[in-house]
Amino acid sequence: MGNKLFFASDYMEGAHPLILQRLMETNLLKTAGYGLDEYSASAKEKIRQACGTPDADIFFLAGGTQTNATVIDALLRSYQGVIAADTGHISGHEAGAIEFGGHKVLTIPHHDGKLSAADVRAYIDRYWADGNHEHMVMPGMVYLSQPTEYGTLYSLEELSEISAVCRERKIPLYLDGARLAYALACPENDVTLPDLGKLCDVFYIGGTKCGALFGEAVVIPQHDYIPHFFSIIKQHGALLAKGRIAGIQFETLFTDGLYFEIGKTAMEAADRIRKALIEKGYTLAIQSPTNQIFITLEDEAAAALSEKVEMSFWEKPDAHHTVFRIATSWATGREEADALTALL
Amino acid sequence: MGNKLFFASDYMEGAHPLILQRLMETNLLKTAGYGLDEYSASAKEKIRQACGTPDADIFFLAGGTQTNATVIDALLRSYQGVIAADTGHISGHEAGAIEFGGHKVLTIPHHDGKLSAADVRAYIDRYWADGNHEHMVMPGMVYLSQPTEYGTLYSLEELSEISAVCRERKIPLYLDGARLAYALACPENDVTLPDLGKLCDVFYIGGTKCGALFGEAVVIPQHDYIPHFFSIIKQHGALLAKGRIAGIQFETLFTDGLYFEIGKTAMEAADRIRKALIEKGYTLAIQSPTNQIFITLEDEAAAALSEKVEMSFWEKPDAHHTVFRIATSWATGREEADALTALL
Amino acid sequence: MGNKLFFASDYMEGAHPLILQRLMETNLLKTAGYGLDEYSASAKEKIRQACGTPDADIFFLAGGTQTNATVIDALLRSYQGVIAADTGHISGHEAGAIEFGGHKVLTIPHHDGKLSAADVRAYIDRYWADGNHEHMVMPGMVYLSQPTEYGTLYSLEELSEISAVCRERKIPLYLDGARLAYALACPENDVTLPDLGKLCDVFYIGGTKCGALFGEAVVIPQHDYIPHFFSIIKQHGALLAKGRIAGIQFETLFTDGLYFEIGKTAMEAADRIRKALIEKGYTLAIQSPTNQIFITLEDEAAAALSEKVEMSFWEKPDAHHTVFRIATSWATGREEADALTALL
Amino acid sequence: MGNKLFFASDYMEGAHPLILQRLMETNLLKTAGYGLDEYSASAKEKIRQACGTPDADIFFLAGGTQTNATVIDALLRSYQGVIAADTGHISGHEAGAIEFGGHKVLTIPHHDGKLSAADVRAYIDRYWADGNHEHMVMPGMVYLSQPTEYGTLYSLEELSEISAVCRERKIPLYLDGARLAYALACPENDVTLPDLGKLCDVFYIGGTKCGALFGEAVVIPQHDYIPHFFSIIKQHGALLAKGRIAGIQFETLFTDGLYFEIGKTAMEAADRIRKALIEKGYTLAIQSPTNQIFITLEDEAAAALSEKVEMSFWEKPDAHHTVFRIATSWATGREEADALTALL
Repeated sequence: MGNKLFFASDYMEGAHPLILQRLMETNLLKTAGYGLDEYSASAKEKIRQACGTPDADIFFLAGGTQTNATVIDALLRSYQGVIAADTGHISGHEAGAIEFGGHKVLTIPHHDGKLSAADVRAYIDRYWADGNHEHMVMPGMVYLSQPTEYGTLYSLEELSEISAVCRERKIPLYLDGARLAYALACPENDVTLPDLGKLCDVFYIGGTKCGALFGEAVVIPQHDYIPHFFSIIKQHGALLAKGRIAGIQFETLFTDGLYFEIGKTAMEAADRIRKALIEKGYTLAIQSPTNQIFITLEDEAAAALSEKVEMSFWEKPDAHHTVFRIATSWATGREEADALTALL
Repeated sequence: MGNKLFFASDYMEGAHPLILQRLMETNLLKTAGYGLDEYSASAKEKIRQACGTPDADIFFLAGGTQTNATVIDALLRSYQGVIAADTGHISGHEAGAIEFGGHKVLTIPHHDGKLSAADVRAYIDRYWADGNHEHMVMPGMVYLSQPTEYGTLYSLEELSEISAVCRERKIPLYLDGARLAYALACPENDVTLPDLGKLCDVFYIGGTKCGALFGEAVVIPQHDYIPHFFSIIKQHGALLAKGRIAGIQFETLFTDGLYFEIGKTAMEAADRIRKALIEKGYTLAIQSPTNQIFITLEDEAAAALSEKVEMSFWEKPDAHHTVFRIATSWATGREEADALTALL
Repeated sequence: MGNKLFFASDYMEGAHPLILQRLMETNLLKTAGYGLDEYSASAKEKIRQACGTPDADIFFLAGGTQTNATVIDALLRSYQGVIAADTGHISGHEAGAIEFGGHKVLTIPHHDGKLSAADVRAYIDRYWADGNHEHMVMPGMVYLSQPTEYGTLYSLEELSEISAVCRERKIPLYLDGARLAYALACPENDVTLPDLGKLCDVFYIGGTKCGALFGEAVVIPQHDYIPHFFSIIKQHGALLAKGRIAGIQFETLFTDGLYFEIGKTAMEAADRIRKALIEKGYTLAIQSPTNQIFITLEDEAAAALSEKVEMSFWEKPDAHHTVFRIATSWATGREEADALTALL
Repeated sequence: MGNKLFFASDYMEGAHPLILQRLMETNLLKTAGYGLDEYSASAKEKIRQACGTPDADIFFLAGGTQTNATVIDALLRSYQGVIAADTGHISGHEAGAIEFGGHKVLTIPHHDGKLSAADVRAYIDRYWADGNHEHMVMPGMVYLSQPTEYGTLYSLEELSEISAVCRERKIPLYLDGARLAYALACPENDVTLPDLGKLCDVFYIGGTKCGALFGEAVVIPQHDYIPHFFSIIKQHGALLAKGRIAGIQFETLFTDGLYFEIGKTAMEAADRIRKALIEKGYTLAIQSPTNQIFITLEDEAAAALSEKVEMSFWEKPDAHHTVFRIATSWATGREEADALTALL
């Protein structure tokens, strides 16, 4: 791996050291399986407090696509689909996991990676107003992510508006928080965990991309909102036999504010890099305020930089340019960020 | 948790200490995601060598039900079902995960938890001979587990016969090795990893119940036997973003024979307990030679023992008796086994 | 087709002549599609009256397997399965249509083709009592057919008991009436359409095997018991563009008691044949009182008879015998029945 | 129904009188079920000859959505999706039937309702070139319809180009011919049945909207291209017990050129109406040369016309206008067309 700098993603390392340490400490203690252990119970309680949702049902799953597929299948009836931005993770990058569960992803054009409340309302109303709507897929829920695939953020106002549309139209709002730590730590952000607890019907707090070995915490603010979710998780192959391993990780992430700390470290590094890029005249393909930075490079320049820095291919906007993603994480030190900016 | 003894399952602890140590050592190194890292590559190579399958495709998934659902869906066409013992894990204890993927589990009565080659052949031939077979579900593969749900073992002869039936009838044989370490370490066992590599079309080497935090290694002896399996894994929500975490664990399990060591420790403890049970006149509900022991207790005696020992409910054969499962693992020390036998 | 006698099934002819005549009369009139026409409305009203279910929702589908798959998918949540006799049509002869919709068929051993209320209750209670039930498929409804695959009938008492179990346990009861006309016309029968309207949550009145070109009438006694069933039908590919063709057929079948007449004709022929078989010492493999007769023949005798009579293969109980099915229909005249008995 | 004129669809009547007559003639003859009868055999042979595909496998299903869902599920592997125009019937108007089978519809913006070969090639190539394609749904086939949802036609050149792309990229081309009779009879059309036999891997000849009571004939030019399609049809609930009813209808449609005759009658009426609309200055929303005509009306004018003519709602392009569809069929006489034009 030599002297290369690694900025391809936020899941290139293991776990935050405090997590590994805690796994060591608890390793030989024996507990019940399937998340029915005391560490998981404690983690759930800490998350309930952080979200201001004392009655919430909480479940730990292994990864994001799995969580999306399981929650969406649990929330929809067989004849319903899920509204998402056309750039949403479930729309394009889950290899058909939602359709595998029998549901259509009903896409709406995005605005900087986001859905707008007006578009969501219009979509739902157009469905019901269409003379042929019984021949069409009924919109049964709304999916969004915070931050979005583009690293952008919903403001509290935007999220509140979408939530209001969902409640007026009586369909659940589900928020994918795969990178939620980076939203929460972003200076621009004004949406807190308790806001999510109030505005969403289900959301998940991402662990895999936010410092855990793996794991996502599904939060369902209203108790028993999804009956038999345990069996649904099992049916989707998403039930962890050693559920405690996820529980211990989330217990650690929600002790002494570690989850927020992790986000802050990543954001500081990202902001240093972003500032340098702008100063040096780079083109940012997307205006992302979080830990993902998207730069457009001429292919020649890209080849040169790629020899020294591992970045992630994003897309080819034309024959001579490529967009790359640079991501920071809890593990991105100031030196690393500086080493990168020195190369620019 | 007090002074209770814990024998409920083989997934009550964290991971074998060598695995945790290795996760610590590698924690800060940065690698590619999705199993494309060097640790996963090394783990795969070690498994290929252990199985005598130099061309094998190997993938790491998180858990058993997930692995079964993903492999079975990959091997079957939409109109085919999977033959399994009526006691098979996929038949009763995966909450319908196989049917969720659209496939019927075609059950055959078991013999001590096992399928017989004769029954499998008869089932397949009866299908094709039935005048109405085009209205029935075509048997498209055979599923078995080693050890079985009952802890019993296929002999090399039995497995060879089933494999021969599958090849004659041109359908794949898939073996679920969730507890394979305990089969491999069992004195009665005569089936090696290279035997599995020869006789099966796909099998998996269990990690979750054999010393890992989580993880199952799918081995496909013939390269490209399942095209696009990576996408199939993703579609099933089973792709690990930090694939290396599974890779590092399997690399450790297949270094210096740790996987075999783990099985041996569990088997020694199980054999001590089994011997004591027999000497003291207990009724073994199932003759299992591996790390799971099934005892039938009068409900009164069961209540007393349950206060001191955590066991696993298995079934109620009648109104006054209950069958419990006692399981040992890599972490079951001699003292613990002795403490249990002292209570009997 | 020469001089052969045809008794292979009850779907060997076209439709009852009155149905064809009515299709002729109405052929050039223009109506709305998708079952929203006045003939369908009139047919529904006649069926509501016949069933004593003034609020019933009624839908016309094309065939039995389609109807079963659509209704079962509509009644179950994704994690639930359907209880059926192991001999039920959905268990073995629908090529996996129920599993294609993601649901497991939970089979219970039959008694003369029937489920018993006690077995159903025990199955449901065993599920909820099992310590591992959250890892198993939840029984979500009960499927039975009247007459059964074996041509046998539920008595009113038996059906009432099963219905009571379903209501106590809060799961729907669904009855497949593919051959309902033959049950209703059977002297042994004491279950009427209004009984079905009271005891079942959904049932269907078979047309295809009871004198129509095709078509099954789904009756849902309680209005809006299945919301959005129209869309569910469409999603299952089961919505007829020219819905009137089914409507006109059912309107005819429920005018002047034609549906009951059809059953009576078939029953008279079946009873003549059955009586002759018994007198001549034939072995009836199953004691069916309806329009299907199952006889066990030595293979040599079978070959001889098959040259003159088209029967339906049922099963091979041993190496030297075969069970055949003889079926009568609305189109089986007395001469035909006598011609058959003359050959015996 | 008074004096209203009916132009809402091409499935408002029963069947062409010759079909009903033939059903009458054959009604009492007894045949095998499930399409294994001699009428179906004869119909298949006539279709093989009309298509110039002597080895074709041919199956009769009941309706269009059902046929699309069954064929698409048969052609795709579980991880593949189907490319379609965003206006395609499967994209928006089948209530999620394709997703119910587990497959994503991969939409491409349409050109007058049509896909272009260049767009299809680009879509497929972009998938394979994308660095993340293993996380995306693999394009596994192409779906198009002739005529399209917009009533437009692929020219032989356009269709040949798309077919060439499919063969280069090794994915099947499937053509939905729900209204194929109207394409074949259209003066603009230069694509014949033998062209379809050469260029498509599977296509269907529509009956329901082209003069039959119901029924679609799936043509698979290459024998055994879809193994076990019979079971796949059964699993989809699409197998007709009285298969002969479909067989007899297609036998009649392909005797003495009736299928072409039906198209011609509808086209003559459509052309008269279209000419009158243009002369009177109406706005055609879509330039359709076949039996469907799309007119944009001011809402006030629409209300007035709707009192006298039954048309079909198509869409609302803005707050004050509505697009309606006028469709002709085999049953639209010259008087009816003239009566309509007199009202314009």
